[in-house]
Amino acid sequence: MRNKLKDIWVEGRPVLHGWLSIGNPFTAEIMAAQGYDAISIDIQHGALDYSAVLPMFQAMRASGVVAMARVPWLDPAAIMKTLDAGAMGIICPMINSRAEAEEFVSYLRYPPKGQRSFGPTRAGVVMPGYGLAMNDEILAFAMIETQVGMDNLEEIAATQGLDGIYVGPADLTLGTKAGRLPPGFDRQEDEMIALIQRIATVCRAAGIKAALHCGTPEYAAKAISWGYHMTTVSGDTRLLAGAAAASVARWRELTGAEPKAAGSTGNKGGTY
Amino acid sequence: MRNKLKDIWVEGRPVLHGWLSIGNPFTAEIMAAQGYDAISIDIQHGALDYSAVLPMFQAMRASGVVAMARVPWLDPAAIMKTLDAGAMGIICPMINSRAEAEEFVSYLRYPPKGQRSFGPTRAGVVMPGYGLAMNDEILAFAMIETQVGMDNLEEIAATQGLDGIYVGPADLTLGTKAGRLPPGFDRQEDEMIALIQRIATVCRAAGIKAALHCGTPEYAAKAISWGYHMTTVSGDTRLLAGAAAASVARWRELTGAEPKAAGSTGNKGGTY
Amino acid sequence: MRNKLKDIWVEGRPVLHGWLSIGNPFTAEIMAAQGYDAISIDIQHGALDYSAVLPMFQAMRASGVVAMARVPWLDPAAIMKTLDAGAMGIICPMINSRAEAEEFVSYLRYPPKGQRSFGPTRAGVVMPGYGLAMNDEILAFAMIETQVGMDNLEEIAATQGLDGIYVGPADLTLGTKAGRLPPGFDRQEDEMIALIQRIATVCRAAGIKAALHCGTPEYAAKAISWGYHMTTVSGDTRLLAGAAAASVARWRELTGAEPKAAGSTGNKGGTY
Amino acid sequence: MRNKLKDIWVEGRPVLHGWLSIGNPFTAEIMAAQGYDAISIDIQHGALDYSAVLPMFQAMRASGVVAMARVPWLDPAAIMKTLDAGAMGIICPMINSRAEAEEFVSYLRYPPKGQRSFGPTRAGVVMPGYGLAMNDEILAFAMIETQVGMDNLEEIAATQGLDGIYVGPADLTLGTKAGRLPPGFDRQEDEMIALIQRIATVCRAAGIKAALHCGTPEYAAKAISWGYHMTTVSGDTRLLAGAAAASVARWRELTGAEPKAAGSTGNKGGTY
Amino acid sequence: MRNKLKDIWVEGRPVLHGWLSIGNPFTAEIMAAQGYDAISIDIQHGALDYSAVLPMFQAMRASGVVAMARVPWLDPAAIMKTLDAGAMGIICPMINSRAEAEEFVSYLRYPPKGQRSFGPTRAGVVMPGYGLAMNDEILAFAMIETQVGMDNLEEIAATQGLDGIYVGPADLTLGTKAGRLPPGFDRQEDEMIALIQRIATVCRAAGIKAALHCGTPEYAAKAISWGYHMTTVSGDTRLLAGAAAASVARWRELTGAEPKAAGSTGNKGGTY
Amino acid sequence: MRNKLKDIWVEGRPVLHGWLSIGNPFTAEIMAAQGYDAISIDIQHGALDYSAVLPMFQAMRASGVVAMARVPWLDPAAIMKTLDAGAMGIICPMINSRAEAEEFVSYLRYPPKGQRSFGPTRAGVVMPGYGLAMNDEILAFAMIETQVGMDNLEEIAATQGLDGIYVGPADLTLGTKAGRLPPGFDRQEDEMIALIQRIATVCRAAGIKAALHCGTPEYAAKAISWGYHMTTVSGDTRLLAGAAAASVARWRELTGAEPKAAGSTGNKGGTY
Repeated sequence: MRNKLKDIWVEGRPVLHGWLSIGNPFTAEIMAAQGYDAISIDIQHGALDYSAVLPMFQAMRASGVVAMARVPWLDPAAIMKTLDAGAMGIICPMINSRAEAEEFVSYLRYPPKGQRSFGPTRAGVVMPGYGLAMNDEILAFAMIETQVGMDNLEEIAATQGLDGIYVGPADLTLGTKAGRLPPGFDRQEDEMIALIQRIATVCRAAGIKAALHCGTPEYAAKAISWGYHMTTVSGDTRLLAGAAAASVARWRELTGAEPKAAGSTGNKGGTY
Repeated sequence: MRNKLKDIWVEGRPVLHGWLSIGNPFTAEIMAAQGYDAISIDIQHGALDYSAVLPMFQAMRASGVVAMARVPWLDPAAIMKTLDAGAMGIICPMINSRAEAEEFVSYLRYPPKGQRSFGPTRAGVVMPGYGLAMNDEILAFAMIETQVGMDNLEEIAATQGLDGIYVGPADLTLGTKAGRLPPGFDRQEDEMIALIQRIATVCRAAGIKAALHCGTPEYAAKAISWGYHMTTVSGDTRLLAGAAAASVARWRELTGAEPKAAGSTGNKGGTY
Repeated sequence: MRNKLKDIWVEGRPVLHGWLSIGNPFTAEIMAAQGYDAISIDIQHGALDYSAVLPMFQAMRASGVVAMARVPWLDPAAIMKTLDAGAMGIICPMINSRAEAEEFVSYLRYPPKGQRSFGPTRAGVVMPGYGLAMNDEILAFAMIETQVGMDNLEEIAATQGLDGIYVGPADLTLGTKAGRLPPGFDRQEDEMIALIQRIATVCRAAGIKAALHCGTPEYAAKAISWGYHMTTVSGDTRLLAGAAAASVARWRELTGAEPKAAGSTGNKGGTY
Repeated sequence: MRNKLKDIWVEGRPVLHGWLSIGNPFTAEIMAAQGYDAISIDIQHGALDYSAVLPMFQAMRASGVVAMARVPWLDPAAIMKTLDAGAMGIICPMINSRAEAEEFVSYLRYPPKGQRSFGPTRAGVVMPGYGLAMNDEILAFAMIETQVGMDNLEEIAATQGLDGIYVGPADLTLGTKAGRLPPGFDRQEDEMIALIQRIATVCRAAGIKAALHCGTPEYAAKAISWGYHMTTVSGDTRLLAGAAAASVARWRELTGAEPKAAGSTGNKGGTY
Repeated sequence: MRNKLKDIWVEGRPVLHGWLSIGNPFTAEIMAAQGYDAISIDIQHGALDYSAVLPMFQAMRASGVVAMARVPWLDPAAIMKTLDAGAMGIICPMINSRAEAEEFVSYLRYPPKGQRSFGPTRAGVVMPGYGLAMNDEILAFAMIETQVGMDNLEEIAATQGLDGIYVGPADLTLGTKAGRLPPGFDRQEDEMIALIQRIATVCRAAGIKAALHCGTPEYAAKAISWGYHMTTVSGDTRLLAGAAAASVARWRELTGAEPKAAGSTGNKGGTY
Repeated sequence: MRNKLKDIWVEGRPVLHGWLSIGNPFTAEIMAAQGYDAISIDIQHGALDYSAVLPMFQAMRASGVVAMARVPWLDPAAIMKTLDAGAMGIICPMINSRAEAEEFVSYLRYPPKGQRSFGPTRAGVVMPGYGLAMNDEILAFAMIETQVGMDNLEEIAATQGLDGIYVGPADLTLGTKAGRLPPGFDRQEDEMIALIQRIATVCRAAGIKAALHCGTPEYAAKAISWGYHMTTVSGDTRLLAGAAAASVARWRELTGAEPKAAGSTGNKGGTY
């Protein structure tokens, strides 16, 4: 089965990427109906695990969106089970060296290219002819999140079979700035922008894709102008919390009715 | 355990009511953190059933929000199980007569006031002293959705033990206008506004509360000016779909990148 | 959204209908990939409830199969929730009279044609434009399972808005033969064949569809020759149990190895 | 499959009955290993529904305990689904008349004795030969919980096919004493004891079984001396909460360490 | 608790082994009723994880079948949790050396024989006396799937405490033939048959068991003639998909009715 | 958010710690209502995984109990996901060296103190302001379970950022006594008591906390007199099984009624 993101990139267009942290097939189906090119399930930080991933992939299938996942760690079991469930791409956190990048890629490819074990239980049901040719369709995105990783950036980007670098600004900031800067998306500091731009440049030079996790369409558009091929814009928890918080605030403004309890117990809109 | 909505109404303030159609405790927890006074789980039209209601009530408990539910139908099993799970109020669809209203109320009250069976399995764990006194705290909202129901409005509103009328504009329109008007929230037609206003007037005369399901804070504020005591403003599926659709549209506008597939398979933002 | 079964019948072709009794979205996805025209989830006798129905409908969506359900009883809550989840048809057991048939149909149609409540939470996400026009696409199949029902067959078949009669031979036999004949599919008795044929004849006269639950393709083909428009052939539990039992028996025959324990605890292949 | 409780009663011995309100197969498996003769899942007041009942029945099967269930209400769908899942007996709340008792029994028996629909999907897998003969093995227990029910006691007890009366003292007290006495188990009032004894007497006269829900083994032993054939002693939630509360209290007594927060939010041991 | 497979082997008989890839306790219960000697849950490639394994083990317990599992990778957490859930054997993929084989075995044995942590939470409930003696009953099967593994075959087979080698022909082919041969069961190539036979020979010499994953009873019988002690024959997904596809094909052949949509979206019967 | 256990220790009081091995939010909510200062979910040996942990944390939140977890192994993915779900402390098994202790601590701390990845998806919703300051609130408990670990005790205890040592007597006995002593809680042997006391002494010297897993309040009180800061007393499965077994035994004693089947299949009260 052809990976449609490859076609989009061949045409020179950027990819709009959605993000799922809620472990529910109905929220996945709702998100998949909104027009994203690709959507990833965040198994690392999302409030979910494999038992939710499977029905979420099933619920997204009909939409035609390219379904991928971020795995929790460089772990063959997690990566291979996610692929067998039907993922068309894997985003892997904490790749710090060429060796780790090669190990990562090897888990996504059947021998002799890699060491993926054969048994695409669900993928084989829903993608007729699923087999060794999927080696060329499944995308491998490595995350660089530390100074060591940044020092090895060119080497990592040159890894045979790696398709791209996925940038998470929160961890990249924590991992490279020794606590000088707080975590968060849509960095405005010159030093962070330079670093984010450098990744896009190195990716382009290596012939792979650069992807950035963003908080707003505006920042994403800027990232695309910097050479990014794919941008994530927010995600299900932030979209839901933000829309609800805005609705509540507007109602209280219009009606002048303050909440009964002065101190709220929750975090209004500030989800991650 | 005191029902906090009663205190808000004693103070003459309106209640902001949230709405859950996604069967997931994490979305419930996110919603409960946004500042609503009360939140109902929609067991009637929501994509969920009792097996989701229980963990959703648990997840909302710490927030202090008043947790209620709309049941699918006038059914003692569904109503009593929802109460035992900890609901502080029940919204019941399709009440067309005084007899049905009395039957509805009887399912919420322990004898001799009603016929609720005793066994508050979860409620008894989380609300110390849960017992017959809950008869006075749990809210009973009847929905009127047909012409027959409207004809019996005054009689229904006068039902002993009924706390309010909950208005769902989509069904009220379908049920009273014989197909002349389409379903939907935030009615603009004079005939529907008159009907919606009449319900508030009758409720006030009967000493009970009027509640309206709205799509926007603006319409809700208008309803409060008409005498409504509680307004629902949108709900989790619409908030999520709407926020995601807006984010996608904005990104496509900024980047000029159209989706790969011309015809999308989904319904962008148009959830119910 | 157009119901594809209507097109098949317009072309004069019979419908092949599958059956799901296992509450699992992966078995549903596997079954939906095998080439059935329509598949129903058996909420009545299946080992599942609404909490399984939702992800099963999601998992079947991409296949294009027409997804329907048998509800447990003539109950508005169960019928309407199943429709909101996306069912394109409902099979309802134990319809014994014209009044019950009319009540059944009313739960599937929005006013003024019926009394279905408006709120297609999932259906609205996955079927753009889902609205009153679905009144004409969603199929209503009544089951006749008693002598009283048979006595009222013509009246039931003439119910405005009813699309067909669904025949379950086990219950039809029990309900009409006063214990003289055992339950089971693929009846060979003349009196049962006559009865089954009579239903097809009455349906054709009334301009509605006749559907028969069968155990084998051979019997289904016979039913089609009798005028049936749709046949169910076996179902997931029987197919799985039958195939496994046959595989075990063949292995034991080839190897001569009897099971360790002489008396087995289970029912080899004899599922319902 | 033979119902072992019938054998116990034939031998003139009383039955020890356990109670499950937690919706979890592991707690069911733990309880089933403790030596009860029979265990019922409380679908009425338990924190669970059908989606939990199925794996709980599966988890209890190996223990050999007779697995039954209390359904939420006199509802054919709930009763038949619970039987198809493998229940060997049904306890039905709120039976107030002979007509309701007959309706109840009819849902448990295949025609021509009743109107149970045929399709024992799980029962047929795990009980070889499951069929019409189960009419004689599955137990039907009616609960009498109101004054009207008590007035009709003899008529109800004489219902053809009814196997016993199950007494829930909390509801029986609420339903007959007009709020004069609080709900609760192990009644000490003379008027309640007289009433509880009368039920046993009527059952014995009618040749059916009397069962009582108790809080302690001591009260259960007393009930057996009154002629009760089956006693429930507490249940999973009360056993767990009580044991944990006692352990906490003992630790605090021994260590002198009071809890950090003076006012606890929960209900120490007082579950229902 | 005695492992019954050991008794079968003592008697010189081969073991028939079933395979579960569907994450559902009802499919597990159905399969366990068909007469297999042992059944493994495939946590590696199956569409399931631990949350499904637990109720599946519970559902299989009453049948008396020996329940085992294939874990995703050589990982102590996965192996020990599966054992605590009640597994009587573990199949571990990708064992390439004596050191890995020893590590694998150590995770299955309590000290001082190994490093399994003590806490058989479910196993202790269902197997009275569960303790250190289980070291001698729980089976350890290593999978050899690469050329390196084949080179170390004799050394691996001689590992103290290892009970057998489990052969997965798909991965063994991919891992040893450098892409020259496609994956799949029931190999017909001389070079693969030689390799498969060599494993049986080495196992017999080392006094351990050889097990082969097969697609058909016929191939399994051949493997037994080559000296294999245990054969897996197909599995739940393939049995279900194969039986349904055959039923559909037969119906279409008999009725001449082609599917509405020419191009099907699924994979008819070709599951893995 | 402040970790309340730190305040308790500042006041010089011991902590009462509960233990959850049942994967269910309702049992968690019941336990959280009984007055424990802290409760951990046992992901290592408990009959549960992450999919249960999330709703269990949600269900415990309102009680104010400090919710923690034992992870299955020294694994960054498991530790970080558990923290993102809201854990206020992690107990990690099998720490044998200073290097492993440092690795463990690093997974709990955001850079530059450690390598925890940023994305507190649920924690950020329920704990306003969740960020780098949580480095100082989340507790890190290492388990020492082998002779090697005991040999390195002082070095491990001195690990920067480690908050305490958690002692599991079963594994500590197995891991240090070479099979001479059986596993179990509440050790009475002098050699084990000496060893358990030594851990408390070393912890106090290192300025960290000592915690002991106990079976009874009496032993826990003794441990506190030895200098332990926190004691676990039994857990949900043992409390439930023990209370049920005692109830059954008492009933059989009072009634003289032996169970129908002489040999029971289960383990009466002997859970781990």
